[in-house]
Amino acid sequence: MVFKKVTLIGQSDESFDAAANDAIDRAEETLDNVHWIEVEELGVEVASVDGRQYQAEVEVAFELER
Amino acid sequence: MVFKKVTLIGQSDESFDAAANDAIDRAEETLDNVHWIEVEELGVEVASVDGRQYQAEVEVAFELER
Amino acid sequence: MVFKKVTLIGQSDESFDAAANDAIDRAEETLDNVHWIEVEELGVEVASVDGRQYQAEVEVAFELER
Amino acid sequence: MVFKKVTLIGQSDESFDAAANDAIDRAEETLDNVHWIEVEELGVEVASVDGRQYQAEVEVAFELER
Amino acid sequence: MVFKKVTLIGQSDESFDAAANDAIDRAEETLDNVHWIEVEELGVEVASVDGRQYQAEVEVAFELER
Amino acid sequence: MVFKKVTLIGQSDESFDAAANDAIDRAEETLDNVHWIEVEELGVEVASVDGRQYQAEVEVAFELER
Amino acid sequence: MVFKKVTLIGQSDESFDAAANDAIDRAEETLDNVHWIEVEELGVEVASVDGRQYQAEVEVAFELER
Amino acid sequence: MVFKKVTLIGQSDESFDAAANDAIDRAEETLDNVHWIEVEELGVEVASVDGRQYQAEVEVAFELER
Amino acid sequence: MVFKKVTLIGQSDESFDAAANDAIDRAEETLDNVHWIEVEELGVEVASVDGRQYQAEVEVAFELER
Amino acid sequence: MVFKKVTLIGQSDESFDAAANDAIDRAEETLDNVHWIEVEELGVEVASVDGRQYQAEVEVAFELER
Amino acid sequence: MVFKKVTLIGQSDESFDAAANDAIDRAEETLDNVHWIEVEELGVEVASVDGRQYQAEVEVAFELER
Amino acid sequence: MVFKKVTLIGQSDESFDAAANDAIDRAEETLDNVHWIEVEELGVEVASVDGRQYQAEVEVAFELER
Repeated sequence: MVFKKVTLIGQSDESFDAAANDAIDRAEETLDNVHWIEVEELGVEVASVDGRQYQAEVEVAFELER
Repeated sequence: MVFKKVTLIGQSDESFDAAANDAIDRAEETLDNVHWIEVEELGVEVASVDGRQYQAEVEVAFELER
Repeated sequence: MVFKKVTLIGQSDESFDAAANDAIDRAEETLDNVHWIEVEELGVEVASVDGRQYQAEVEVAFELER
Repeated sequence: MVFKKVTLIGQSDESFDAAANDAIDRAEETLDNVHWIEVEELGVEVASVDGRQYQAEVEVAFELER
Repeated sequence: MVFKKVTLIGQSDESFDAAANDAIDRAEETLDNVHWIEVEELGVEVASVDGRQYQAEVEVAFELER
Repeated sequence: MVFKKVTLIGQSDESFDAAANDAIDRAEETLDNVHWIEVEELGVEVASVDGRQYQAEVEVAFELER
Repeated sequence: MVFKKVTLIGQSDESFDAAANDAIDRAEETLDNVHWIEVEELGVEVASVDGRQYQAEVEVAFELER
Repeated sequence: MVFKKVTLIGQSDESFDAAANDAIDRAEETLDNVHWIEVEELGVEVASVDGRQYQAEVEVAFELER
Repeated sequence: MVFKKVTLIGQSDESFDAAANDAIDRAEETLDNVHWIEVEELGVEVASVDGRQYQAEVEVAFELER
Repeated sequence: MVFKKVTLIGQSDESFDAAANDAIDRAEETLDNVHWIEVEELGVEVASVDGRQYQAEVEVAFELER
Repeated sequence: MVFKKVTLIGQSDESFDAAANDAIDRAEETLDNVHWIEVEELGVEVASVDGRQYQAEVEVAFELER
Repeated sequence: MVFKKVTLIGQSDESFDAAANDAIDRAEETLDNVHWIEVEELGVEVASVDGRQYQAEVEVAFELER
């Protein structure tokens, strides 16, 4: 069993939790075996969006097929 | 006044906030003088649980009796 | 366009999201062009407050006028 | 010559060296020009496996074709 | 909007700026929506090349299609 | 002699050196005694600008009057 | 399920793998539910021992009873 | 010989040295074989105390009995 | 209650403690509500001064008025 | 007793342990009082060698004569 | 083949690239087998020089003779 | 002007300040142009000494002759 990790940045206009989930949702659209994610950075975009945009940069670990 | 810090990992199926609170709740079951906690790492477990399990690794600082 | 970053610690008795927003709100009271924030540290104060006080130390980036 | 780096987690029930080799082996199944790897983290899984499972998270650097 | 980050090492025999551009150029050959890059490490290779080879390890952030 | 440090992000469409200088220039418009700067991060903005915009986040140290 | 982490330094005159196992063995003498360990630091003591003493500082994560 | 490390925060109204000693003194009240300490963080509390309170967060390493 | 942190470098020809105090003293000349400081870096200047000049780079946290 | 630390990179075609020992062996050829080493980085060279070359970058601490 | 790394700070009144080259040039005056350098820190000295002095702290890796 | 940095560990049975000075004193016995030092780590040895031995690991920067 070998895992690979990729780095995604999810976004949400509601919360950091939702931003992390956004990244997991996107990962699961194309990857079959997502095991866990680790949060690398949290931020909020203010100037270029309406309201506030929560952002979560996460590492997504998934199992590689053999 | 001397403080000691211990490292706990709390969990929740709802949010990072609840995962941090889970660790504080557990600490307060056995420690009398919890003063503050610091978040060390946030993550989400996906593969081995139903839904998604938010995790917060925190350092819990409490006052040692003299 | 030159940006400046200042470090603020926001607080909330509800969530980490609200603590980060608290810091952004305070920044926008005195600064015109807040662009984004980065979360530096998350913590919870327990001993000196009623209930639990969520804290978010953030770097606020804003555009300097020329 | 441009290199790309990907992050893999190899495993072995024998040693950290073998866990790192496990990741390199897997990388070379699909990549032609692996140049070097850097160890990012070492760990041992105990609870969910028989015996002990050595793990090595590594960055694998390979040359991109042009 | 979800971003993905990949790690590339660009090279140049002229400057660190050119080495970073080398990585961006390579990224844009295969990726449509490169947004920004962050420099992770700078170095110079001396022994195995003529003259000196500037190297820039960068994280390239691009927008994933949905 | 007490020093204060502030964090600025300078920009240039030519090089990292020029981006760092941009931040120093801006600091010297309002501060009398800039002593040195330290580079914290280098990056390149690609998507929202024409061409490529080099960015240098720097800490500017200046002497406080007494 | 709440985890606690403690920091141990194991030793061996044979290898880093054995030094990590030494720490896990010691943890399992007094703790029922060790789940995983993370290697924090590796070193070798030379002056105060016969031959060479491999050392592994590890964080041991175990499940707290409720 | 296996070592364990615990994290303590000592305090003093005189100096950082005394704050570190405060933590060692407290450790030796309950632990027989303290070998060394490493300073993790130094700080000074100003608002909630008379005068200034020096603080030293230290890791205390002691030998576990077998 | 929102806190702001600023970075100062204090100096003393006697000790690191005095260098940290030098920075706190300077902060309190212009700020009403200094709460605590965190030591970021310690150093000693030798070449450009008589004797040795202890230096402490500290983050000073103070409460912002609302 | 004053210690000095130097940084060496040892190599081996067998294991990380042997690579660390290679660096210690080399240090002891020219230094009389090597006390301990700390592992800074582990890696494996693949492209420019036969098989795989384990590498260990270590800090070697030795006692200076007075 | 064992490598040793030494830390040098090169300077230039023109660019970061030239400051790094300054350090490599100096290393090659006394060392036969410089293989590569890694940039540790970049800065600019302003107060004690005419104009601006670019500085690059680099680790120089060279092969030790056996 | 090129600087070189070496890492020394000074000791004292009195204070961290004295431990740092111990390292500077030793450096100046063999080096002509010590400019500054940076503190890397502070610790206290307890078990193998009488009383307590303060230790300061410092980087010593000195000017190389040309």
